[in-house]
Amino acid sequence: MENVVTAAVVIIGNEILSGRTQDKNINYIALKLGEIGIRLREVRIIPDVEAVIVDTVNTLRHSYNYVFTCGGIGPTHDDITSECIARAFGVEYEVNPEAFMILEKHYPVGEFTPARQKMAMLPRGAGLVLNPVSAAPGFVMENVYVMAGVPRIMQAMMDNIAVTLKGGDIVHSRTVSTSLPESKIAEGLAVIQSEYEDVDIGSYPYFKDGNLGVSVVLRGTVEARLDSASDQVEALFQKLMTA
Amino acid sequence: MENVVTAAVVIIGNEILSGRTQDKNINYIALKLGEIGIRLREVRIIPDVEAVIVDTVNTLRHSYNYVFTCGGIGPTHDDITSECIARAFGVEYEVNPEAFMILEKHYPVGEFTPARQKMAMLPRGAGLVLNPVSAAPGFVMENVYVMAGVPRIMQAMMDNIAVTLKGGDIVHSRTVSTSLPESKIAEGLAVIQSEYEDVDIGSYPYFKDGNLGVSVVLRGTVEARLDSASDQVEALFQKLMTA
Repeated sequence: MENVVTAAVVIIGNEILSGRTQDKNINYIALKLGEIGIRLREVRIIPDVEAVIVDTVNTLRHSYNYVFTCGGIGPTHDDITSECIARAFGVEYEVNPEAFMILEKHYPVGEFTPARQKMAMLPRGAGLVLNPVSAAPGFVMENVYVMAGVPRIMQAMMDNIAVTLKGGDIVHSRTVSTSLPESKIAEGLAVIQSEYEDVDIGSYPYFKDGNLGVSVVLRGTVEARLDSASDQVEALFQKLMTA
Repeated sequence: MENVVTAAVVIIGNEILSGRTQDKNINYIALKLGEIGIRLREVRIIPDVEAVIVDTVNTLRHSYNYVFTCGGIGPTHDDITSECIARAFGVEYEVNPEAFMILEKHYPVGEFTPARQKMAMLPRGAGLVLNPVSAAPGFVMENVYVMAGVPRIMQAMMDNIAVTLKGGDIVHSRTVSTSLPESKIAEGLAVIQSEYEDVDIGSYPYFKDGNLGVSVVLRGTVEARLDSASDQVEALFQKLMTA
């Protein structure tokens, strides 16, 4: 039996929705999860609105093995994620003594201001996710991991989290590219797909140097099956090229 | 009264969820919608799975004024978006005579193969979205716009769609940047935010040349209010820099 472990990502960020900023976190998390055998099944990008954050987290945490959120855990008025996670879990939002100690130690004497102390406010029962870049920790509540939105900090947190996660079977992939148009390979690909139900065959057209090409990506947990299926795809392309 | 027009985007793509590909479509759509006064409120990235596509589209089309989907309208077996949209609307999935004519004209005689004819299959009642890049059209059903996933084709389709949409009040923005840390500006920013309820003030830390900086972005529909609020933010930063 396949051991399937799933995840969802929530990007909390008005700046992504407005188009001001291009997201750089989804791809990093997707690749990192893939490496440890966790399948990213859904991503939602939502605004900094309390009811939306609470509803989204509560929907997703019951639908997937893991949920990862990015953004909204800083010291400013628009950083409302930690409080929303407390509400989603129905627990107190309060000073976390361990986070308080980390931050107090990080700042020079007299500079651990009330704004900075806000970053020690977490849902009751949260476990800390350490932040080697700027000290203010992320946290975990059950299967929900809460990270910063700044890519460099998020990446450090994700790396710390990844070693603690329990993945399932790793999905491997093979890519076969061709300059043939999708419409020429469609029929043959469908036949191969029907013969390999345990392999997920995707066809992705792209532009390169003004010409269309196609990357066919085969994904599955059994490498021998991927090799065999990608051999068939290569044979199909060769046959069509010389036809 | 503010005229608020909202939208959601659905990215249909296993290749984004696996991390193989970095999305390039969200940002383009977000900026284009912003220009015409449509507020992007939510993005979902979902896999090529029929039930997920149908449910997602049906949820979002009732929640927002417009929905835009990207991906899954090509000729291969994994292109299931058009059929899913037909199911979401409970209508037939059938040959669209106008799309058929466009494609038949586009290909050399004898090359309008069955795989290519699949791209003329659309939900009954669909309006076409023309594709100047590779002919195969996108389409619209009520408030749902269905586009290709290849960025160059998606952009051409989005440009064609944008001129037909009815936007609301345009959200303008001002950005004020500082090398002060977020925690130093947090208290003052919160005061300004409380005085400008019609302005959405976001604080976005970033790394540049190894140092943290903050961009404060003010967003709202009344430019005079944005100017006045951003003057206050600038005055706050000057006061804190010389403090």
